[in-house]
Amino acid sequence: MDYFYAKPKDIRNRIAAQEITGPTAGMCAGYAQANLVILPKKYAYDFLLFTQRNPRSCPLLEVGDMGDPFLKTMAPGCDITKEIPKYRIYKNGELQGEYSEISSFWREDLVSFLIGCSFSFEAEMLETGIPVRHIEEKCNVPMYKTNIPCQSAGVFRGNMVVSMRPIPYQQVSKAVMVTGAMPRVHGAPVHIGAPEQIGISDLDRPDFGDMVTIRPGEVPVFWPCGVTPQNVIMESKPDFCITHAPGHMLITDVRNIELKYGSD
Amino acid sequence: MDYFYAKPKDIRNRIAAQEITGPTAGMCAGYAQANLVILPKKYAYDFLLFTQRNPRSCPLLEVGDMGDPFLKTMAPGCDITKEIPKYRIYKNGELQGEYSEISSFWREDLVSFLIGCSFSFEAEMLETGIPVRHIEEKCNVPMYKTNIPCQSAGVFRGNMVVSMRPIPYQQVSKAVMVTGAMPRVHGAPVHIGAPEQIGISDLDRPDFGDMVTIRPGEVPVFWPCGVTPQNVIMESKPDFCITHAPGHMLITDVRNIELKYGSD
Repeated sequence: MDYFYAKPKDIRNRIAAQEITGPTAGMCAGYAQANLVILPKKYAYDFLLFTQRNPRSCPLLEVGDMGDPFLKTMAPGCDITKEIPKYRIYKNGELQGEYSEISSFWREDLVSFLIGCSFSFEAEMLETGIPVRHIEEKCNVPMYKTNIPCQSAGVFRGNMVVSMRPIPYQQVSKAVMVTGAMPRVHGAPVHIGAPEQIGISDLDRPDFGDMVTIRPGEVPVFWPCGVTPQNVIMESKPDFCITHAPGHMLITDVRNIELKYGSD
Repeated sequence: MDYFYAKPKDIRNRIAAQEITGPTAGMCAGYAQANLVILPKKYAYDFLLFTQRNPRSCPLLEVGDMGDPFLKTMAPGCDITKEIPKYRIYKNGELQGEYSEISSFWREDLVSFLIGCSFSFEAEMLETGIPVRHIEEKCNVPMYKTNIPCQSAGVFRGNMVVSMRPIPYQQVSKAVMVTGAMPRVHGAPVHIGAPEQIGISDLDRPDFGDMVTIRPGEVPVFWPCGVTPQNVIMESKPDFCITHAPGHMLITDVRNIELKYGSD
């Protein structure tokens, strides 16, 4: 919780200097965090349409101009190639490797997409007394592939990925209301309880991130996750794609409350 | 108010048969209405990005597949070339004419965009006791060009268009809350009172639609309007574009409450 009250730019500077290299949950309370997808322009229309058709898993926060690695809206001046703790590169749908920065891979035909992240609403969950287990246990959030199909768009198709937080039964309604009020960072849960109903066979083995403890009296609650595009990239196999590594997010300069009510 | 409780499909059938040719305000209470923009594919990425960057004036409800005039989500099976009361065709940014159907203009490279319309929230305004003057006066809503710039995207740039409804001073907060809860059909007002502040010099001369009476004790309240893209088309001059005629909307099969909470 060292960085709970830190300012986004300070954290991003430490990330660019590779002083911070891990997951960003619990950092910069009140500020929106974002998933990253970078694709060549030839795929950009199909992917933009994919986000429009799948707003719960892919709430779009900013789209960069082709060839420009600097953000304008969510973190003005941020170099998207350096200010995320860990990146992934996929070629033809296969993970090629993880990188602490990707400036040497930047190209003139690349377009960046920022998608809201559910880490954003965790400070508000904590404020209202709802536990966030992966912050307590200082690990990454557990994420799972599901059997929930996304709406296809052009070449992009695949199933939704979800993040899971164990919630005490008596706080489930509150968790739905708190997060449902923040649709641009995924909003309300997509599923509560019964993981097998959405195609998750073993909660102890997340597809991304780390397992967390589910205590007696708690139910697993699942939110749409911005890692969904990575699952879709693996299935749809574009020739080149850069993403963040799951849980290693961009911390933006925009507060959640601005996303909720709009800027002036 | 004859069609206030009508079902969307019945109204769309009457529209396709050209029995209904006028504005659609006050029809099919509770169902979302939509603005239409049809562009050649070569402009589709820029326009999709324009809607993403301008969600208040251009809340996107559905994007068709290239060359397919039939809708899938907002009004499954609807022929977008026939089920709107009046269309406009623009060439190089100039209005070429108005048409009651546009099937003969359809091409394999065209993409349809549906954008939420503020007519959608008028039934809820009426239910909560807020007057809707253009429904009372059986005319089109007044719409104005403003000096509020949109965020540019590719070739598309221009200012926001707003719709205006006179609201009694004591009901302004209620009008903000009722409409602010429905962001996918434009949401909260963008401006209240003082039309000159947003570049409107004469309320009696709307740029689109009809003037309505502003009574003593009422203030003009302005909402972002889905005619904004037409203003942008006039400035940005794509070689070909089809839109609805202002106020002559697509009445969808989706209820506002589904837009608010999502479908299952």
